[in-house]
Amino acid sequence: MPNLPFPRSVPASPGCANGSFLKLPGHLRSAHDVTVTYFRFVSHAAKTGRKPNILIMLVDDLGYGDPGAFGGGAMLGAPTPNIDHLAAEGLKLTSAYATPVCTPSRAALMTGRIPARSGLTRPLLASDHPTKNPWADEVSAAKLLSENGYITGLSGKWHIVEGKQGGDLKIVYPLDTPKQMGNVDQDFANWSVDFIKRAAKDNKPFYLIHAFAKVHFDNYAADGYEGRSAAKLPYRDAVVEVDDIVGRLTKTLEDTGQADNTFVFFTSDNGPEEDSYPDSGFTPFRSGKGTTWEGGVRVPGIAYWPGIIKAGRISDGLFDLMDLFNTSLSLAGIKDKIPKERYIDGVDQTGFLLADDGVTSRQAVFSYNQADFSAIRWENFKAYFKVIQYDQPFANISMSTFVPVGVAPWIFDLYRDPKERITRSNGDYEWLYGPVLQLQGAHAATFVKYPKKDIGLGIGGGGNPQ
Amino acid sequence: MPNLPFPRSVPASPGCANGSFLKLPGHLRSAHDVTVTYFRFVSHAAKTGRKPNILIMLVDDLGYGDPGAFGGGAMLGAPTPNIDHLAAEGLKLTSAYATPVCTPSRAALMTGRIPARSGLTRPLLASDHPTKNPWADEVSAAKLLSENGYITGLSGKWHIVEGKQGGDLKIVYPLDTPKQMGNVDQDFANWSVDFIKRAAKDNKPFYLIHAFAKVHFDNYAADGYEGRSAAKLPYRDAVVEVDDIVGRLTKTLEDTGQADNTFVFFTSDNGPEEDSYPDSGFTPFRSGKGTTWEGGVRVPGIAYWPGIIKAGRISDGLFDLMDLFNTSLSLAGIKDKIPKERYIDGVDQTGFLLADDGVTSRQAVFSYNQADFSAIRWENFKAYFKVIQYDQPFANISMSTFVPVGVAPWIFDLYRDPKERITRSNGDYEWLYGPVLQLQGAHAATFVKYPKKDIGLGIGGGGNPQ
Repeated sequence: MPNLPFPRSVPASPGCANGSFLKLPGHLRSAHDVTVTYFRFVSHAAKTGRKPNILIMLVDDLGYGDPGAFGGGAMLGAPTPNIDHLAAEGLKLTSAYATPVCTPSRAALMTGRIPARSGLTRPLLASDHPTKNPWADEVSAAKLLSENGYITGLSGKWHIVEGKQGGDLKIVYPLDTPKQMGNVDQDFANWSVDFIKRAAKDNKPFYLIHAFAKVHFDNYAADGYEGRSAAKLPYRDAVVEVDDIVGRLTKTLEDTGQADNTFVFFTSDNGPEEDSYPDSGFTPFRSGKGTTWEGGVRVPGIAYWPGIIKAGRISDGLFDLMDLFNTSLSLAGIKDKIPKERYIDGVDQTGFLLADDGVTSRQAVFSYNQADFSAIRWENFKAYFKVIQYDQPFANISMSTFVPVGVAPWIFDLYRDPKERITRSNGDYEWLYGPVLQLQGAHAATFVKYPKKDIGLGIGGGGNPQ
Repeated sequence: MPNLPFPRSVPASPGCANGSFLKLPGHLRSAHDVTVTYFRFVSHAAKTGRKPNILIMLVDDLGYGDPGAFGGGAMLGAPTPNIDHLAAEGLKLTSAYATPVCTPSRAALMTGRIPARSGLTRPLLASDHPTKNPWADEVSAAKLLSENGYITGLSGKWHIVEGKQGGDLKIVYPLDTPKQMGNVDQDFANWSVDFIKRAAKDNKPFYLIHAFAKVHFDNYAADGYEGRSAAKLPYRDAVVEVDDIVGRLTKTLEDTGQADNTFVFFTSDNGPEEDSYPDSGFTPFRSGKGTTWEGGVRVPGIAYWPGIIKAGRISDGLFDLMDLFNTSLSLAGIKDKIPKERYIDGVDQTGFLLADDGVTSRQAVFSYNQADFSAIRWENFKAYFKVIQYDQPFANISMSTFVPVGVAPWIFDLYRDPKERITRSNGDYEWLYGPVLQLQGAHAATFVKYPKKDIGLGIGGGGNPQ
């Protein structure tokens, strides 16, 4: 196992290839924090006699700036009091990252692996003829948790291989009419509410991914939701519905007495959709879904656990949705079950998320366009090796191009230039070539022993379907 | 007095020219609110035996998105816990408006009048030879409050006519060195802390405008503040200092027992500076300071008054900084002292700001480029008649141009397109020509009886100095 310049989960190897320049934040700032966190954690487990529940709420195509807590809400004519409540009473993450599109984000969240390794780099299209089922040799967090005493469930959008490749999924809910499509999230919510109640009754810990169908276009209104937002737009009405469902699920945790024993994570699978703009999501960042620009991959992230996570925390520490794989297994006390024969890109963020002043265990976020490497977020910098050129309104993702930036990477200081407006500024950042190229080199080297998986979709560039 | 289609302060004339299309929100949604608000208000006055204090904190060039509560903070490497505290415990205004630059915003706040009426449409430059002192016939809120039992003060930046035209202001603090410039806000803060303590000791109500020098470039660091932000940039260090001072002033109110008898308003005088970009402020909106695009005029607004203003309120209701004129006089119980022989553009927003579900009393915001009319914000729409073309990085405000948009106004739905990206969308908004043109016409008509004031700076277009 190479001594990599970024933390890995198993085995923990927080060293640095040359040890000279990379600041490597520990899980926790001080020993005191460890005591506090684990004391609380253990005391809760002792009190309830149960392992913690895990509820992941994953919205489809929600923009970073859509929730009020992230700058939107009332400003956009769609207040989000329930999402804002989770942020105000929990930990708001301002540097949480997804992949540019739906399928790879979901696959990464479930497997803890960069989609190039699982083969799930983009949705399967009708014209695709994959040579293998990527899930045949992937291990999901749900599988491991299910084998270790958890009731597991996914309510809502799957979208990571349907039909023969997905093990012949059963159609449980036909989507033939706008009315059905409009109400589908209400049905998902009903199912999740019931699931949470059943878990409480059975006195078993649960792991539930509640994956909204909304706010992906077209947003047909659920019964009673047409015109419900002040904006009176289909997208914003859908945001209001999503927020209401967040409130319903949170209340169900409270009503069943499980709120203080449940780790809740709220997020989105990628940036806002540009093809349907302007009836679309809001990001303050450059570009949107389908790109590795900040607008495509930075998503709202909230960790909420009353009594464990300190209310009102805000952190810009790096978080990748794939970290939910390791973190979930760690919370369940089965870190030792994480497969060791494969490369896991996720890191355990338990310390970061739970300790009052926890810092991130993730050193860098690597962004891909399908199976092709594109960019690195490290500290407050973003370095692009290839960019997806797609930065105008009404662009179509399938019309995007993926081009190298030149000899040297393009580097942005996201604190100085959060909108990534200045592409000509490499002169200011030459000192960053060292760390950035070393991170990129070490990351690329992992693929020598652990190569990309080819499921017959091509593992290189090409178009970028949603 | 014409029957205008927007609320005026004195005499109240909330009618509509044709009464057919304009929704005219009342001060309060229901009679119940009036009872609640004024009961609370009266009971506090009775309890303390004093009229409420008024503390206005005005930051220079702070971007709408800089505070954490408005989407920035930790995300920009400069957390703002004290500003965020005011927002979380008070009312966050997502549609508060200033003018595009410093001088007119300050003049409007103090006089309740659109700067074209006061003549204070831009800073006086060394090359200017004004023909009259604009303050000779203006009436500030401070003057009226001072005549009616209030201790009044301004700590910090004045910038609304210096030298002979400003009544020969005395130099009290030399700014000769970067060290002096860096520490000037600490001196302003010391003065304000002392002022608040003196007022408490004298048992007199106060009206204090705390006008920061920061975060206008160049931001020399105060002692101890260099590198204090996670971003380690001069601008962000200055944001941290401003936030600390907000905390100091808030704490001084608490320490002197005046927190529950003080109306606090926090805001900025215009959008972020583009000339110094990227060491500059952050706005999610289009363009920045010096323009009437949303990035130039939309500013963070927070009203805070523990026990009176309900914690956690958020409203997208319209608020113009000039409304602080009327609102302050209303809070002091001297609305009858508002001059009647001149046109007051501000409106009394007491009901909006204090009632638990108060709605705005302002129907529209009129934006100007110096003395020239440019745009209207009405409901969630923005209509431009002339635009300031200045929308690229590194632009210089003095290089901007002010051009008519054509026969019909450009209209944006700010809920649908908050970044004002789609200038070609008039086809969708033809139904808005009626209300928008009527608002513009009625507004223009007020200048027949109450003409613009010419102080020798020119009352038309021209450049747009800061």
